[in-house]
Amino acid sequence: MKANSFGRRLTMTCAGESHGHSYTVIIDGVPAKIPLKTADFTDSMQRRAPGQSDFTTSRKETDEVQITSGVFEGLTTGAPVCLVIANKDQRSQDYKNLKEIYRPGHGDYVYQQKYQHRDYRGGGRSSARETVCRVAAAVIAQKILQKTKIEVIAFTQQIGPYQSQLSYQEKLCLKTKQIDQSAIRCPDNQVEKLMQDYIKELKAQGDSCGGICQIIAKNVPLGLGEPIFAKLKSDLSAALMSLPAVMGISFGKGFDCVTMKGSEFNDQQVIIDDQVSFLTNHHGGLMAGISSGQPLLINLAVKPPSSIALEQKAINLSGKTEIIKIEGRHDPCLLPRIAPVAQSMVEFVLADHYLLRSPGFN
Amino acid sequence: MKANSFGRRLTMTCAGESHGHSYTVIIDGVPAKIPLKTADFTDSMQRRAPGQSDFTTSRKETDEVQITSGVFEGLTTGAPVCLVIANKDQRSQDYKNLKEIYRPGHGDYVYQQKYQHRDYRGGGRSSARETVCRVAAAVIAQKILQKTKIEVIAFTQQIGPYQSQLSYQEKLCLKTKQIDQSAIRCPDNQVEKLMQDYIKELKAQGDSCGGICQIIAKNVPLGLGEPIFAKLKSDLSAALMSLPAVMGISFGKGFDCVTMKGSEFNDQQVIIDDQVSFLTNHHGGLMAGISSGQPLLINLAVKPPSSIALEQKAINLSGKTEIIKIEGRHDPCLLPRIAPVAQSMVEFVLADHYLLRSPGFN
Amino acid sequence: MKANSFGRRLTMTCAGESHGHSYTVIIDGVPAKIPLKTADFTDSMQRRAPGQSDFTTSRKETDEVQITSGVFEGLTTGAPVCLVIANKDQRSQDYKNLKEIYRPGHGDYVYQQKYQHRDYRGGGRSSARETVCRVAAAVIAQKILQKTKIEVIAFTQQIGPYQSQLSYQEKLCLKTKQIDQSAIRCPDNQVEKLMQDYIKELKAQGDSCGGICQIIAKNVPLGLGEPIFAKLKSDLSAALMSLPAVMGISFGKGFDCVTMKGSEFNDQQVIIDDQVSFLTNHHGGLMAGISSGQPLLINLAVKPPSSIALEQKAINLSGKTEIIKIEGRHDPCLLPRIAPVAQSMVEFVLADHYLLRSPGFN
Amino acid sequence: MKANSFGRRLTMTCAGESHGHSYTVIIDGVPAKIPLKTADFTDSMQRRAPGQSDFTTSRKETDEVQITSGVFEGLTTGAPVCLVIANKDQRSQDYKNLKEIYRPGHGDYVYQQKYQHRDYRGGGRSSARETVCRVAAAVIAQKILQKTKIEVIAFTQQIGPYQSQLSYQEKLCLKTKQIDQSAIRCPDNQVEKLMQDYIKELKAQGDSCGGICQIIAKNVPLGLGEPIFAKLKSDLSAALMSLPAVMGISFGKGFDCVTMKGSEFNDQQVIIDDQVSFLTNHHGGLMAGISSGQPLLINLAVKPPSSIALEQKAINLSGKTEIIKIEGRHDPCLLPRIAPVAQSMVEFVLADHYLLRSPGFN
Repeated sequence: MKANSFGRRLTMTCAGESHGHSYTVIIDGVPAKIPLKTADFTDSMQRRAPGQSDFTTSRKETDEVQITSGVFEGLTTGAPVCLVIANKDQRSQDYKNLKEIYRPGHGDYVYQQKYQHRDYRGGGRSSARETVCRVAAAVIAQKILQKTKIEVIAFTQQIGPYQSQLSYQEKLCLKTKQIDQSAIRCPDNQVEKLMQDYIKELKAQGDSCGGICQIIAKNVPLGLGEPIFAKLKSDLSAALMSLPAVMGISFGKGFDCVTMKGSEFNDQQVIIDDQVSFLTNHHGGLMAGISSGQPLLINLAVKPPSSIALEQKAINLSGKTEIIKIEGRHDPCLLPRIAPVAQSMVEFVLADHYLLRSPGFN
Repeated sequence: MKANSFGRRLTMTCAGESHGHSYTVIIDGVPAKIPLKTADFTDSMQRRAPGQSDFTTSRKETDEVQITSGVFEGLTTGAPVCLVIANKDQRSQDYKNLKEIYRPGHGDYVYQQKYQHRDYRGGGRSSARETVCRVAAAVIAQKILQKTKIEVIAFTQQIGPYQSQLSYQEKLCLKTKQIDQSAIRCPDNQVEKLMQDYIKELKAQGDSCGGICQIIAKNVPLGLGEPIFAKLKSDLSAALMSLPAVMGISFGKGFDCVTMKGSEFNDQQVIIDDQVSFLTNHHGGLMAGISSGQPLLINLAVKPPSSIALEQKAINLSGKTEIIKIEGRHDPCLLPRIAPVAQSMVEFVLADHYLLRSPGFN
Repeated sequence: MKANSFGRRLTMTCAGESHGHSYTVIIDGVPAKIPLKTADFTDSMQRRAPGQSDFTTSRKETDEVQITSGVFEGLTTGAPVCLVIANKDQRSQDYKNLKEIYRPGHGDYVYQQKYQHRDYRGGGRSSARETVCRVAAAVIAQKILQKTKIEVIAFTQQIGPYQSQLSYQEKLCLKTKQIDQSAIRCPDNQVEKLMQDYIKELKAQGDSCGGICQIIAKNVPLGLGEPIFAKLKSDLSAALMSLPAVMGISFGKGFDCVTMKGSEFNDQQVIIDDQVSFLTNHHGGLMAGISSGQPLLINLAVKPPSSIALEQKAINLSGKTEIIKIEGRHDPCLLPRIAPVAQSMVEFVLADHYLLRSPGFN
Repeated sequence: MKANSFGRRLTMTCAGESHGHSYTVIIDGVPAKIPLKTADFTDSMQRRAPGQSDFTTSRKETDEVQITSGVFEGLTTGAPVCLVIANKDQRSQDYKNLKEIYRPGHGDYVYQQKYQHRDYRGGGRSSARETVCRVAAAVIAQKILQKTKIEVIAFTQQIGPYQSQLSYQEKLCLKTKQIDQSAIRCPDNQVEKLMQDYIKELKAQGDSCGGICQIIAKNVPLGLGEPIFAKLKSDLSAALMSLPAVMGISFGKGFDCVTMKGSEFNDQQVIIDDQVSFLTNHHGGLMAGISSGQPLLINLAVKPPSSIALEQKAINLSGKTEIIKIEGRHDPCLLPRIAPVAQSMVEFVLADHYLLRSPGFN
């Protein structure tokens, strides 16, 4: 099946439930002699963790990563690296009352019907907490990408009706540090305030809101991606659309291409300083599914969180309609927290394709 | 690598170039005793073929499918089915002048840089003609889906600024036959005329236009898709984003979810005639990546074709800028022709996941 | 890469080193609602563990299996099952003096050359202790096989020059309990004594000995295995030849077929009680790579353990020859301990192929 | 499923039946710019073909290989290479009388039971003629191996009771040309005569005989193979055991290790001319599943062909016992013909693992 494995040459195999013992991810295909220690994971896990601001759930997930294999005396050995993230600060009792009811917008119903038995505590396997594995795995991907100049950033482009007004050129100059200075990961300071107010307002109403996460991968060398089913476009889509709450993905001009003419859309190639470049990047860094040397531009549509405090009608295991109020501590908006996760998946795909290049041939 | 293979239990492995000898697709995992004959492919190949109207290229691709293995006395044997589609009506001389230049918007440049050697005739491996393999493979997928009630339709939702005005309920009643009655595969008769005029106008200008292809899969049983990386959402995205010219994909409300509140977005479940149903289908038939029993709703953003008759600036193999006019017979808009291909990929993914269900267990 | 993953529909992904933190195995594709608890692993792990008799190493490996995901309220959920086996009773100091030298017959040299960095303690990733993962994973395979009548036994057929004299019919009646009554897992009581004396004698000399492990799978239904590369013969060979110390594998008459004539080798089919059967089983239960309904018969050639107390010449990291005496607690013969491991791999392959059968078709 | 695909980075996907239209193999992962033309296949296909001598079937299989994709102007393009081998000189009528009966030792019975529908002509998918695909694919593997010094030879080591007496050192000096000078591919001239007489005698009796094929891979660089399930030992076993008629495989000392002591079996490492070497090669070139730099030594047990002219008892589709005499033109011994096929599979695995090495890392 390999349903819980991802990657071609660099693979991650994930397991775990939100209120189970722990999450585990085995990363295979890791080259030997890469320095790796527990502390390398702290920043990334902290960036993903909830409880960082008023705009995210107040659940604390310290999420220490334990390395249980594949590293000896501080260096990878070529053996599979196993990472474990324990589950702490669980309040399973918050979910007891959800045993008998299907939360609107959640996987409860389909899991129950498909498997006829489910871990109802916090969504079990369907909980977005599984992304701890992806973020941990991407720390190793980052180490591999250090051999290249590839740099991936992800940030909040839109929340509700409020869009970042940064230009493409401004975005290309962004660093993760700047993005993280915003509690909602929107590096446009002016719009950021409006977005924050919007989130606060919806949170106060017991409601939630959606948005767009934008990802840019800089310095991606030309030639990553393999036609026709291992196109970078295809692998990135599989990686990012596997994330909970993501309803759509687009590259470059994305859905705006619909109303463009070919003469507008085609990016003109030019020679600048003896280097081939493009006057525009409507294609989003991918031509025929292969990286073109231009930055990768990706947009993700992220739905408003399903867990809201407002009363909702739902059905229960007996097929009766009930009024439900979702208790527990939930994110009013996923955008502040999805950026590091989306960034991780892009890093993983790029590291995978970087290793996939044929040695000594093309 | 398996870069040219797709699928988990039902797989297709594709090969071929637009001006090479032929295209070949090997479909593995086909159950035995399915009736299959050459004539079964005629309709699907005809639907994909160019030259059907003024709105597509005048190239003729009769595209007969030859079955060279896996079928005995009219029934599949469980052995891999090999299908061959010969290349005919090629005018390779149309492409001679493209040997030394990179067509804007095409894969020429990245292929040349990645492989240092490319079949420049009509795009070679990067030509969209490779979709003959996908459509042929999907004919077998359709045969498998006949064991179910699953029915997939695909049609033109938007071309340039013109959107179909059909309601969700009207679309659910659509049949492929109706869709095909429109030369541009837009079943909204009123808007269709505007779209046709728009295409004609751009074609006359030597330009091209984009649009949105919508796919609906009806009667998909609850429970297809396997968390967390074999989610139906993820596999469908990989399948459809591997298609040439597709710049974005979305499910259900798609990018519209960005401005919705959780209380609006969450679909309320209800019991109708002792059956669980949903009052709305914002989730697009997929919850936690698993089919919910509601129709699958998918939108694809399709870019305007890169091959336009207008003069464009391009660079050549020597790194000089040239003026290029793309000759040959090209589609001014891909929407009329992408619907059958998109439908095929969705059928293939659904047949794959249908076979993937565990026998006798869940 | 997936180098540390095995299986098609039921997969295990393994990680761990003999003197690292722990071993981990993630089993994916496990059907939901299978009862599974920690105690289910005790017997199998105990059977694999060393220290059970004078004929194995005195190292103690209690090897408790911890279930860290995929099980809720005592039943599998369809989510990947993660099993962890901690490393205890390690005496890493025994291996300190091996840091600078390549033990004859071990993977030390190739690991050092390939990865340029290795965990030298007890072989690291190349240690046979990795088989704890396989045995743990097979406990789940056994649960799946309980839906069938398939029963796998493995026992010592030969040690040094001493061969079991049990007839084929006697072997077909063997149960694992009987096999385990022998400290060296040879169910032929008469020959067993000779084997034991032989092992003791070699152990006293500081030497070691090899042997043959025989595996029989009973009640395997006809039809498992998929031509041409997923033949049961091929998957079983990959599974068993991946075990450390296994130098050869054969099915049915195996290497004895070399001197047989076709008229002798061909197994005659007969009808007994309206059932198709075979008068003989030279083919070992596999025809054209597919199970025939006859018992599977497999022989494994197992080399004498490389770690011996006798003085040996070896080279060190500086390329000098040294005299080495392997200290630590080692098995003088692997046969007593390889049977449960080989049995596990066959069980896993059979459960995988059982789940792989197409539902509702062939 | 991918049951008809083999390989990790370099893959072959095969289709075809002995009396169908043609065999097809798609090779994916082929590096660009490798010279490839139809004539490159002639020698290999000729070596595999029957009808070369009195010792093989008189069926003629000219087996021209047609390249239908992946090559442009004489060089590979990085796109999948599709090769087609037409079926000619079929005498399907020879098989008409086999429609209703299961030939002893053949796959007829299991195919009929498993698929409930089979191509009975010459075994259909289970025919050994499928090896044309493997041999054709290996021609590309050979081209990749030309970047290395790896050289694979395969020859007849034993037929019936007659064993080649060549020493290990003599075998290491063998070239394929010398092997092919023997009609039965036994390079030991003295024993060859006895083997030929033995085959002739059995053929005259309407019977058949088995033997051992030995394969040696020279100049394999240290470090190919990936623990624990992509060991070279494991992949080679899967590759070779997927061949029809192969009942067993062993590496190095193989089953002889059973009666050896550790002190005898362990190969002593020495430094010769500043190079690490081994005094002996009992391990057969693989330590811990990874190539050691020593030649690979592999033995295959090949059963006597099932198709014999002698009268045999068999059962038919109605479950009755009949007397059967296999007509048609059949090999009295497979050894003369299996050597090139076995060589091909080893070449394919080695090319796959050669490409699999991580670029720029280890």
